[in-house]
Amino acid sequence: MPAEDTLPAPFTAFDAAALDRIEAAADRVLAETGLRFEDDPETLALWRQAGAEVDGDRVRLDGPRLRQIIRATAPAHFVLHGRNPARSTRVGAGERPVFAPVYGPPNVLREDGSGGFGTRADYHRLMAMAHAAPGLTNTGHMLCVIGDVPDAARPLEMAIAHLTLSDKPFMGTIASPAAMRQVIDAAAAAIGPLDGKPVGCHLLHLINATPPLSYKGNPLKCLRLAAENRQGCLVTSYMMMGATGPVTAAGALIQGYAEVLAGLALAQLWAPGTPVIMGIFAMPFSMSRMVPVFGDPALHLVQYGAMALARRLGIPGRGDGGVTSSRLDDAQAGSDGGRATAAAMACGADFILHAAGWLDSGRCTGLAKFRREAEALSLAAGAASPGLEPPLPLDPALAAELRRQADIAAG
Amino acid sequence: MPAEDTLPAPFTAFDAAALDRIEAAADRVLAETGLRFEDDPETLALWRQAGAEVDGDRVRLDGPRLRQIIRATAPAHFVLHGRNPARSTRVGAGERPVFAPVYGPPNVLREDGSGGFGTRADYHRLMAMAHAAPGLTNTGHMLCVIGDVPDAARPLEMAIAHLTLSDKPFMGTIASPAAMRQVIDAAAAAIGPLDGKPVGCHLLHLINATPPLSYKGNPLKCLRLAAENRQGCLVTSYMMMGATGPVTAAGALIQGYAEVLAGLALAQLWAPGTPVIMGIFAMPFSMSRMVPVFGDPALHLVQYGAMALARRLGIPGRGDGGVTSSRLDDAQAGSDGGRATAAAMACGADFILHAAGWLDSGRCTGLAKFRREAEALSLAAGAASPGLEPPLPLDPALAAELRRQADIAAG
Repeated sequence: MPAEDTLPAPFTAFDAAALDRIEAAADRVLAETGLRFEDDPETLALWRQAGAEVDGDRVRLDGPRLRQIIRATAPAHFVLHGRNPARSTRVGAGERPVFAPVYGPPNVLREDGSGGFGTRADYHRLMAMAHAAPGLTNTGHMLCVIGDVPDAARPLEMAIAHLTLSDKPFMGTIASPAAMRQVIDAAAAAIGPLDGKPVGCHLLHLINATPPLSYKGNPLKCLRLAAENRQGCLVTSYMMMGATGPVTAAGALIQGYAEVLAGLALAQLWAPGTPVIMGIFAMPFSMSRMVPVFGDPALHLVQYGAMALARRLGIPGRGDGGVTSSRLDDAQAGSDGGRATAAAMACGADFILHAAGWLDSGRCTGLAKFRREAEALSLAAGAASPGLEPPLPLDPALAAELRRQADIAAG
Repeated sequence: MPAEDTLPAPFTAFDAAALDRIEAAADRVLAETGLRFEDDPETLALWRQAGAEVDGDRVRLDGPRLRQIIRATAPAHFVLHGRNPARSTRVGAGERPVFAPVYGPPNVLREDGSGGFGTRADYHRLMAMAHAAPGLTNTGHMLCVIGDVPDAARPLEMAIAHLTLSDKPFMGTIASPAAMRQVIDAAAAAIGPLDGKPVGCHLLHLINATPPLSYKGNPLKCLRLAAENRQGCLVTSYMMMGATGPVTAAGALIQGYAEVLAGLALAQLWAPGTPVIMGIFAMPFSMSRMVPVFGDPALHLVQYGAMALARRLGIPGRGDGGVTSSRLDDAQAGSDGGRATAAAMACGADFILHAAGWLDSGRCTGLAKFRREAEALSLAAGAASPGLEPPLPLDPALAAELRRQADIAAG
């Protein structure tokens, strides 16, 4: 039997022949239809230089060559450094999965039943929970939108929360290249050199394709900046099956794989060795009700295929835990989210996003759900409440300087 | 990729070497400690005749020989016949899993929040839901205890409900051999001969060992009677890890496998070819709170191992869906139950018990949870509400005769 410390072998629903066919079909999509790379001449120039056929902003690509580029330099494992070195995590096959909270909701649902746009106070409460939970090994990004802070100041406002209320690794901003630069610098200053050398990868950035078959200018510019700074990129296709992607699991995998292959290869072309994670996050879209259906097992089927494709590329893969269509932390939310997290773990996902707090198809962060899921992940990791020690203090001068910058950005 | 109709390959956390070690350790338990077979001289005589070493009611057994007996005659697949032949189900590797509702709770929790001992009216409501749900392909047994009917009449009272409110396959009673005889005869009369021949297996019976390492007299007598009537036996070890079984998953599998091997072999010794299903259902028992913990992933780990051991024996295996410690159909119930059902499905369990309605560590049937889980299983099977056609009518003369017998039993 496996030792206590051995992880079960990953589960997949797709055998080698099925994965071959998905790869071949994606290669055909890349060669015949190609992808659009919008509003970013630098990316088009890079593709041209790499020998691809560029037609306006449409680029026809060679799938096997993209895989070759990725396999040549993308690391199979990398470390996400935290401000506290004891909380740094290795990411990749054979490591325990990293769990990060929900990312992106504009709304919150508080335990007292009140809700609405997220606030800085909500963010700080969520951060305190994220830090204290041993099961959450990355504090993520945008646990909710900070609606009561001006747009321009939010990236730094979030980074300050992650750097002062926790010392775990976290995720960077993709609001704009300028904001990304600011947060990368802030985190680098906070984490400092390790053994006299730059610390390496201390931020992970969510780089989304825009299905079907395109990338927008901002994520392309952010991908480039992250790669040039040796920071991590979580390259993802996030699609609705039947709306922005094909309706079947196999079709979604084909389109999603074509999309992420291009992004992953771009990261390596900009800076060989850039730490990347591959993700295909697809959920069925109900044609009759015009809503995504996060409890549908098709979501898990795509997850299984995506992880198997990532393993073939030799890079870490993303999982999605906790997702649900429910607006409350009720039995549906428990069942949808529990099954999604279980599916992500069963197939060996290396970085599991949305593992705590997701409600209402990703439009709301539920504080009760956040607490429940963080606690369950901590129990499963063998470490229950009362949770971790407080974070190491951030250097007060740096904290004051970041606060000053955030206040300037807020105007 | 798999065709729409192809099931994913089963998942296990135990490789061949681990399973070899579990089997070898169970063999040692059988040979050195043996099992107790209480209050049933016939079983002891059968073991003696089969060459086992009988010492009082303790019998030391030869594990490899038990596996040989089981493999020689236990069917890899069998049909559970329903009153409506269109609803009969095949059970075994490669078939879709059969889902049956919760089995055994004395209490119910109704949608209006009222609760207490189950009643005949509750039972009939649960049966109507179980019949209407396309996702439940077996209506099971003892959806709740019928507390307002005298003890002696309950087995037939339940059988009448299953035979009149549904035409799907269901499970028989193990209250006593006499009650089992009555229900087997009632079901045989209702289902009737098929193509002029006796219909074969139309009832499945839950035969529980009594961990650690014993069987009581009544289940042994019921096992014999079911086998002699060619009816199915779901031979199970249901243990609490840290109380009635070892605290580790591997230890629980070793003890549970030793227990069920004996029961499965007995069924074949009584009547070669008896349809059997193997189950090890083990959940951690909290030493500090003195309660079972149904949300703990250790439950899934044992499930994975048990299914792999059943596959090695070449017989169908049991899974356990929907189980939770929660007393309400809340987020915890959703998460616990959803993950348990997902784990049972992932490892390829052939017959999944407790798939709808289980609450409060199995002491309560929740009507809202029953409805939610039945609906989710139906959606996952591609068949949503409003559900199935009403059952084929039962022959009125037979219905009247069964009612007369139940009234006599009630006194």
